[in-house]
Amino acid sequence: VTPPAAGRKGRVWLVGAGPGSPDLLTLRAARLLARADLVLYDALVDPAVLALAGRAQRFCVGKRGGRPSMDQETIHRLMIRGALRGKRVVRLKGGDPFVFGRGGEEALALAAAGIPCEVVPGVSSALAAPALAGIPVTHRGVASSFVVVSGHAESAYRSVLGSLGPHSATVVVLMGLGSRAALAAFLLGRGWSPSTPVAVLLAAGSEDAHAGRATLATLGTWAPPDALADAPGTIVIGEVVALGEAITAAGRPGGSVPLVAAVEGGRHAGSR
Amino acid sequence: VTPPAAGRKGRVWLVGAGPGSPDLLTLRAARLLARADLVLYDALVDPAVLALAGRAQRFCVGKRGGRPSMDQETIHRLMIRGALRGKRVVRLKGGDPFVFGRGGEEALALAAAGIPCEVVPGVSSALAAPALAGIPVTHRGVASSFVVVSGHAESAYRSVLGSLGPHSATVVVLMGLGSRAALAAFLLGRGWSPSTPVAVLLAAGSEDAHAGRATLATLGTWAPPDALADAPGTIVIGEVVALGEAITAAGRPGGSVPLVAAVEGGRHAGSR
Repeated sequence: VTPPAAGRKGRVWLVGAGPGSPDLLTLRAARLLARADLVLYDALVDPAVLALAGRAQRFCVGKRGGRPSMDQETIHRLMIRGALRGKRVVRLKGGDPFVFGRGGEEALALAAAGIPCEVVPGVSSALAAPALAGIPVTHRGVASSFVVVSGHAESAYRSVLGSLGPHSATVVVLMGLGSRAALAAFLLGRGWSPSTPVAVLLAAGSEDAHAGRATLATLGTWAPPDALADAPGTIVIGEVVALGEAITAAGRPGGSVPLVAAVEGGRHAGSR
Repeated sequence: VTPPAAGRKGRVWLVGAGPGSPDLLTLRAARLLARADLVLYDALVDPAVLALAGRAQRFCVGKRGGRPSMDQETIHRLMIRGALRGKRVVRLKGGDPFVFGRGGEEALALAAAGIPCEVVPGVSSALAAPALAGIPVTHRGVASSFVVVSGHAESAYRSVLGSLGPHSATVVVLMGLGSRAALAAFLLGRGWSPSTPVAVLLAAGSEDAHAGRATLATLGTWAPPDALADAPGTIVIGEVVALGEAITAAGRPGGSVPLVAAVEGGRHAGSR
């Protein structure tokens, strides 16, 4: 590791790592990683992305499921200390740095400490997971808007999904795999049709990507393949999901994923 | 231009160009552009991005405001013809290919013609414009979800914004600059507070980026700087906009944009 230049002012970049696959990183993110002195990364960041930060000290500060993790204050302290020592600090976050994941809190902590900070947007899983599965979140005549919610607890989605008219937008749920039964029951209770198509997109953007299919009626009993039981997942709810089938009919819309097979596999899984 | 290899099967990639700045392109998009035989691009794509497609024929197929443009059927025909001739065709779209902009229709047309197609997600302006202005679309205790709508006509946002509970999510509006007065009136009529903070983000990701500030009460009379009267814009509505001010206090969160100045300039513009 090259020591930072004496007297150089440090700064922090809050960088989106995209949905997983290293080639969905932005050019700006790749350049910043190559120049970084210190990289503080989330647990879900791909090792091939980290490998781009060849000269940096690298620390995992992420949390995963229920496992113990570094607390948020410690992450703030590490960023601030690095910058005060003149380091180029990259805080590398899965997807986009400002979609869930406390990016705003980290930016506020840096602002309060007087540390210059730049935000580098990334490809969010909320959009990339459906796109890689051939599902357009908007489509003329089908959906002219979409809603992105965190599914980790009902308190996170109650106010928006509780008021939203049934079928008035595509609904994208991040961090909602564990509460998929409650989520489906919630929407059914709000008047959504049981036959509403649902896609469950696991490990999107990675080589293990899997696109499962269900409906609101079957989402609660849908189960992921065993190998992907701990994979991150994005749930997409709405008629646009059915378009994904027509779109994937001709080939592989998603780059690294054999999607026709994946959708068929998902349909099988959905019928269990 | 190198002729495509004889007998090679052509294919089409629907590629997101990101919000403007070439370094917010993904590595995958840059690699595909470098190898492309034919690039069909939207009007808003940055010339520096196109320059990456050094060996390709390049055609602008985009529309801009009310000006005449190629019809959608013609775009489909050009993509299909190119692929049938064995070419590597990149359909380059602003932002993300599946967020508005008829990416789904293009993918369906390719599927119907039996042309292999891959979708390459991009950084969407819906998220990048606020992030570059230091505005987190979600923030613990402030907003746990966000809604993205097209603002070009009331029919596009009526069902979702008409049902959504006031202040229950951050609202991001694309293509809504021209209807900002109607949009503000619509939300005020639904019970949103007149003091709800609003950011109007023009030409996000480019060197001309400008972050204007308003409230729902003043959005209708807010006016862009003359030089940016035709720039694309993203409107962000909700309390998270106020966080952007605190976050930008320490420096330049948005890479290429001097945001403290931009926010102050916007506040000035908002007070006209």
